[in-house]
Amino acid sequence: MTHETAGCIFCEIVAGRAEVSLVHEDETVVAWMDLNPVVRGHLLVVPRRHAVGLEDLDVATGAHMWEVAHELSRTLRRSELRCDGINLLLCDGVVAFQTVFHVHLHVIPRHEGDGWTLNHTAHERARALLDEDARIVRDALERR
Amino acid sequence: MTHETAGCIFCEIVAGRAEVSLVHEDETVVAWMDLNPVVRGHLLVVPRRHAVGLEDLDVATGAHMWEVAHELSRTLRRSELRCDGINLLLCDGVVAFQTVFHVHLHVIPRHEGDGWTLNHTAHERARALLDEDARIVRDALERR
Ligand SMILES: [Zn+2]
Ligand SMILES: [Zn+2]
Repeated sequence: MTHETAGCIFCEIVAGRAEVSLVHEDETVVAWMDLNPVVRGHLLVVPRRHAVGLEDLDVATGAHMWEVAHELSRTLRRSELRCDGINLLLCDGVVAFQTVFHVHLHVIPRHEGDGWTLNHTAHERARALLDEDARIVRDALERR
Repeated sequence: MTHETAGCIFCEIVAGRAEVSLVHEDETVVAWMDLNPVVRGHLLVVPRRHAVGLEDLDVATGAHMWEVAHELSRTLRRSELRCDGINLLLCDGVVAFQTVFHVHLHVIPRHEGDGWTLNHTAHERARALLDEDARIVRDALERR
């Protein structure tokens, strides 16, 4: 109980004080059915300890979220829910579509024509520009 | 060289036989600038050893992909590229928008109005139905 944040619905769920349809729990993370699924079978993997996003989430907990999402993805393919593909999505920040500010990883089983689409225009970027972008990222990595 | 798959462009890159703008490499994964970025700074984290998707990717390698993506996300926020948010996305299967069939994790730095959007209609699902979905997933987990 020591790590929860007042008013956080995911902390309430983790603490057992809000209704949820659980699929997995261990010492570090809990996974449940999304209340507002974009498709049937949409799951969330959520660390027990409150963190807003990638900035304050510890790396080991993040890796375990991923392991559980990986296992649940394989399980969904074999479950009666079935699926033809999986998207794993993390939304960190309002601009990245985060709506609950307790970090969570979406596991989204996909079917042809399920209505979940991505919109963007991707254009090939010139190698010289990509090399410059890569240099900027490598410089920032070195400063960390 | 023993694990590469003929005709796979990501195996070619990992083997050093195709042009790339690298940002990170270690024994297990390599990260580079996406050639067709949906936004500037779009990175891919890619395991050295060929795996198509979540089915044949080993769990430890997947967790390390995630750790590297986590670190790169934090780095992007501090780099000159900057961003207001991050999406991490894995596309497993054609229906889930996979286009290169060597598993990879997208790291997408986000800005207001950058044009990357998700389309879906999410409706609240009745608790009884979520409980039934959760039971199906838990049953499948037990069979694994
Ligand atoms: Zn919380
Ligand atoms: Zn490959």
